[in-house]
Amino acid sequence: MNASIFVNGFPCKPLPEVKSDDFFFDGLSQEGNTTNVFGTNVTSADVLVFPGLNTLGLSVNRVDFAPGGLNPPHIHPRASETSVVIKGKLLVGFVTAGNVLHSKVLKAGEMFVIPRGLVHFQLNVGKGKALFLAAFNSQELGIVILPTTLFVSTPPIPNAVLTKAFQIDEKVISAIRSKLGS
Amino acid sequence: MNASIFVNGFPCKPLPEVKSDDFFFDGLSQEGNTTNVFGTNVTSADVLVFPGLNTLGLSVNRVDFAPGGLNPPHIHPRASETSVVIKGKLLVGFVTAGNVLHSKVLKAGEMFVIPRGLVHFQLNVGKGKALFLAAFNSQELGIVILPTTLFVSTPPIPNAVLTKAFQIDEKVISAIRSKLGS
Amino acid sequence: MNASIFVNGFPCKPLPEVKSDDFFFDGLSQEGNTTNVFGTNVTSADVLVFPGLNTLGLSVNRVDFAPGGLNPPHIHPRASETSVVIKGKLLVGFVTAGNVLHSKVLKAGEMFVIPRGLVHFQLNVGKGKALFLAAFNSQELGIVILPTTLFVSTPPIPNAVLTKAFQIDEKVISAIRSKLGS
Amino acid sequence: MNASIFVNGFPCKPLPEVKSDDFFFDGLSQEGNTTNVFGTNVTSADVLVFPGLNTLGLSVNRVDFAPGGLNPPHIHPRASETSVVIKGKLLVGFVTAGNVLHSKVLKAGEMFVIPRGLVHFQLNVGKGKALFLAAFNSQELGIVILPTTLFVSTPPIPNAVLTKAFQIDEKVISAIRSKLGS
Amino acid sequence: MNASIFVNGFPCKPLPEVKSDDFFFDGLSQEGNTTNVFGTNVTSADVLVFPGLNTLGLSVNRVDFAPGGLNPPHIHPRASETSVVIKGKLLVGFVTAGNVLHSKVLKAGEMFVIPRGLVHFQLNVGKGKALFLAAFNSQELGIVILPTTLFVSTPPIPNAVLTKAFQIDEKVISAIRSKLGS
Amino acid sequence: MNASIFVNGFPCKPLPEVKSDDFFFDGLSQEGNTTNVFGTNVTSADVLVFPGLNTLGLSVNRVDFAPGGLNPPHIHPRASETSVVIKGKLLVGFVTAGNVLHSKVLKAGEMFVIPRGLVHFQLNVGKGKALFLAAFNSQELGIVILPTTLFVSTPPIPNAVLTKAFQIDEKVISAIRSKLGS
Repeated sequence: MNASIFVNGFPCKPLPEVKSDDFFFDGLSQEGNTTNVFGTNVTSADVLVFPGLNTLGLSVNRVDFAPGGLNPPHIHPRASETSVVIKGKLLVGFVTAGNVLHSKVLKAGEMFVIPRGLVHFQLNVGKGKALFLAAFNSQELGIVILPTTLFVSTPPIPNAVLTKAFQIDEKVISAIRSKLGS
Repeated sequence: MNASIFVNGFPCKPLPEVKSDDFFFDGLSQEGNTTNVFGTNVTSADVLVFPGLNTLGLSVNRVDFAPGGLNPPHIHPRASETSVVIKGKLLVGFVTAGNVLHSKVLKAGEMFVIPRGLVHFQLNVGKGKALFLAAFNSQELGIVILPTTLFVSTPPIPNAVLTKAFQIDEKVISAIRSKLGS
Repeated sequence: MNASIFVNGFPCKPLPEVKSDDFFFDGLSQEGNTTNVFGTNVTSADVLVFPGLNTLGLSVNRVDFAPGGLNPPHIHPRASETSVVIKGKLLVGFVTAGNVLHSKVLKAGEMFVIPRGLVHFQLNVGKGKALFLAAFNSQELGIVILPTTLFVSTPPIPNAVLTKAFQIDEKVISAIRSKLGS
Repeated sequence: MNASIFVNGFPCKPLPEVKSDDFFFDGLSQEGNTTNVFGTNVTSADVLVFPGLNTLGLSVNRVDFAPGGLNPPHIHPRASETSVVIKGKLLVGFVTAGNVLHSKVLKAGEMFVIPRGLVHFQLNVGKGKALFLAAFNSQELGIVILPTTLFVSTPPIPNAVLTKAFQIDEKVISAIRSKLGS
Repeated sequence: MNASIFVNGFPCKPLPEVKSDDFFFDGLSQEGNTTNVFGTNVTSADVLVFPGLNTLGLSVNRVDFAPGGLNPPHIHPRASETSVVIKGKLLVGFVTAGNVLHSKVLKAGEMFVIPRGLVHFQLNVGKGKALFLAAFNSQELGIVILPTTLFVSTPPIPNAVLTKAFQIDEKVISAIRSKLGS
Repeated sequence: MNASIFVNGFPCKPLPEVKSDDFFFDGLSQEGNTTNVFGTNVTSADVLVFPGLNTLGLSVNRVDFAPGGLNPPHIHPRASETSVVIKGKLLVGFVTAGNVLHSKVLKAGEMFVIPRGLVHFQLNVGKGKALFLAAFNSQELGIVILPTTLFVSTPPIPNAVLTKAFQIDEKVISAIRSKLGS
C-alpha cells in the first residue's frame, strides 16, 4: 500500500514493476475450515487478496460444505453470481420478485445463476462434503449474511425493529443472538 | 403495450406521439393506506407506473408511516437510495460491512443515504404520522423485504434452511409465517 | 482532504474511521435566501458538501422560490432529474428533440422528470412561496445556467458569437450583461 | 425497420444477413450547404443514418463553415466530443464550471475536446471556408442548439420565463424569434 | 424466440412464465470432444444456450484438453476472464502492453486472470487430460481465435496483407490454410 | 505527475489551475514517419499525451501510410473505432463472428466502423500516401498488434504454442522473428 498511484482505492503499479505473479493466485486450492455453526466456509479471491483483479470487474469464491452444511441466506450487493458445483449435492435456492422461491438440487458439473441483490442459499443435501466455485462480475462483490446482519450487528438493530419485522418476541431474539454471536 | 418498439422491455413511443403528460406524474400526492402488520405503505413512482422514466435511471418512492409504523429491514438490489424526511421523526438505520449498524433519528428536512444492496429500515419514533420521499438511481429498483422474503415465499424456503440459518425451531418458523402470511 | 486514499478525487475513509454521521446530512432543512435577480435559491446536497455520497451516484437539491421566482433555463450535464413539488404551484418545462416544449403547472405532491442534458426551467406561478426537491443520478450533477453561462462568463463569449447566435446587437448584449452581472 | 429483433430501438440483423456495406458509410464526403442564418452545416453520421453504429457507442459529425460562419452555442446531452480541424481557422470555445470560458483559435490538424453537456461554439475566423470532423462517444449524441431551443421552440417558452431569465423585454424576444424562426 | 418482449435481442419472459429451471443449466457437466487439430474443446454456458443469463453480465466456459492440447492464442472482445484449473497442469500465458508475456504453469485449484481484449493461450503440459473453468463478465463474451481468424476467414484476408504483416511468403500462407482449414 | 489528486491514475488539477490549453492539442498536425517494416505510422492523441481527455472517454489517432503501407492486423481491447479517410485509397477490413471478413476500398471522406476487440487492418492500395483519422470511445484504447504480439514478445511465446497454433515449423517462426524483431 505504499504505491504512489491508486485506482479504485487500490494501488496501481507502474508498468515496469508489474510481474507475472501479479496475475496468478493460489489462495483457492485448499479446502476451507467448516467447523462453525453453519458448517460451511467461504474462501475469497477478490481484489482485497488478489490485487491483480483491480479494474477487471471479476472475482471468484470457493465455498466448502461439511455434511449438512448451509451457506445461509445472503445477498451480494455489487454482483450477480454464476456458480458450478464441483463436488457433492447441493440444494440451491433464491427468492425473486413476488416472493417466489426458485430452487433445485444440483450435482457436480451443474451450474446456477443468482441475479444481483437477491436472497439465496445453498444446503449440502448429499452424504459427504460438497464444494462449488462461484464467479462474480465485481472485483469486490460484498456479502450480506442475513442471520448475522439482522441479529448480531454492532450495535444491534433495536428490538423494536426486529419484534415488529419478524413478529417474534424479545426472548426469541435473545436466543438467536446467543446462538449466532461470536 | 401495443407499441412496435421496446427498449429495456418497455414501449418506446415514436417521437411524434410523445406528449407532455408522459413526463409528469401524479401518483405520489395521496397518503398511502398504512393499515397492515407493519403500519407503513410504499407508493412507487417507477417505470412500471410512470413509463416516462424509461432509460432515465431514476425513480421515486413515497413512504407513509402510521404512529409506530416500521418499514421493515429490506434491500434494493438495483439502486442506492437517498431520502429526505418530509414529516415526523424517523429512526433510520442500515448495516454495512463488518455487521456495523449505522443509525440516527431524523426529523423533517433531514436526509440520509443507503448504499445499494445493504439492509436498512425506518421506524416511526415520533408521536404522529411520518412521511419521507426516497429517490433511487434505477428506474426499477427492486425491493427485497426480508421478513416476507425469508418466511412467506412461495414455495417456502425449506425449514432445514431456516432452522439452521436463524437457529430457531420449526414452531417459531410456523408462528412467524402465520403472523406475516397473507 | 488529508486522507490517504481518494476515489473519484474524493477522500475515502479507512473502514474503522467511518462514522454513522457520514451517511446523514442536515443541509437541506433550511429555506434558501431568494433575494436575487431570479427570486430563487438552490441548496445542494451533492458529494462536495455530503462526502458520504461518494461512489453512490445520487444527489439531492432543494429549490426555493419567492413569489414570481424563476429557476432560469439550465442544463445538468451529468444527470437526469426527477423532482417532487413540496409546496406551491410551479410551471415546469423542458425542451426536447425537434425543439418541442413540454410543460405543465404542478402543485404539491406532483412529480416530473427531466432527461439528462435538456434545457429546463421552473416558474413560481402560485401566490406564495414554492419549494421542490430534486433528485439526480449523479453525485456531482453539474449545472449550466444558460443566461449567466452565455452572457456573463469570464472572459466573456465574444460579441461576434452572441450577435450572430441570437441575432441581437451589441447594445442588447451590454444591457443583459449589466443586469445579470455581479 | 421491418426487422424482428430490435436493440436500443434499432433493428438488429440476424448474423447471416449482415453485409460488409453495413459497416461502411459515405454520407460525410460531400460539403454541406451553409446558406442559412448561421452560415454553417452539420452532416451527421450517427445511428439514425448509419445503423452499423448500433450498440457501438460512437458517431461522427462533419461541420462545414462559410466564411464568417458560426456553429452557435450548443450542447450535446449524451456525449463528449473530440474534434480535429481539417480546413480553415476556427475560434473554438466552451464554458465550464464557475462560468469560465476556455477558447483558442485552431488551424488544420489541431484538436480540441468538449466535455459532455457543456455549452460550446465554433466561429470561422479565417478568410475562406472551414471544416472540422467531430467524434462523439455516443451513437446518438443529441444536439441542443441554444438560440433555437430558447427562442423558437414549439410551443414557445413563455415570455414570462425569457424576460426574467435574460432580463430583456418582449420586443427583443419578438425580434429574436422573427430572425431565427423558419 | 416467439416471445413478445426482447431485451438485448434475447426474449424476456413475462414474470408468471418464469420457471426455476430457467436459472439452472446442465450443459457443462460432460467432457468435450478434443479430437481436433488443437486437442482442446470449449463448452460454453453463455446467453445463447442459457437464456437465464440475459441482462446478468456473466457466463462460464468449460475447457477440456487432451494430453498436449492447446487452447490457441485468442481474444475475448467483450469480457475479462478469471479461471480456475480443475484438473491437470496448464501453461497459461498472455501478452500485455509493451509486448510483455506473462506466463506460469498452474495445477488444480490455482487461478489466473486475463484482462479483456488481450491475447492469451493455455497449453496442457501435464501427462494426462486437463480441464479448467473460465468465468467472464459478459453474457456473450465473444471469441477471436487468432490462427483461424487470420488464416481461414471467409473470404480470406488478402495475401498482400498477410505477407507484409507476418513477413512470410504465399507458400507458407497456403500451408497454414490447408492445415487449419475445415 | 506531482498533482495531489489522481482520477483513473492520472492527475486531476484543482479547478483554479485548469487552463484553456489543457483542452487543446497540437500533436496530430504533423505527418508521421513511415520508414519501417510496415510503411505506416500511428500518432496518438490519448490521455497519456493529452491529459485533458481524462474521464472523458474519447481519443483520436492519426494514421499515415507510405505507398503500399499496411496497418497490420490489430485489436483495440478497450474501444470501438470509427474512422474517416482524409487522403488516399485504403483497403479496410475486419473479421467478425464466424470468421467472416468484411472489407471495402475507401477513398477520402468515406467512413468505417470497427467493433471493439475485433481483428482489423488497413492497406494503402492507392498510388500515393494515405491518411485517416480514427476516433475511439476510450481515453486509453490499447493496441494489440498481432504480428509483434504473437512473434516478438518478451519473453517469446513458447515455440510449442506457436507451432501448434499456426501449424508452422520452428524455422518459419525464427524467420518471422528475425524480420519483425527490433
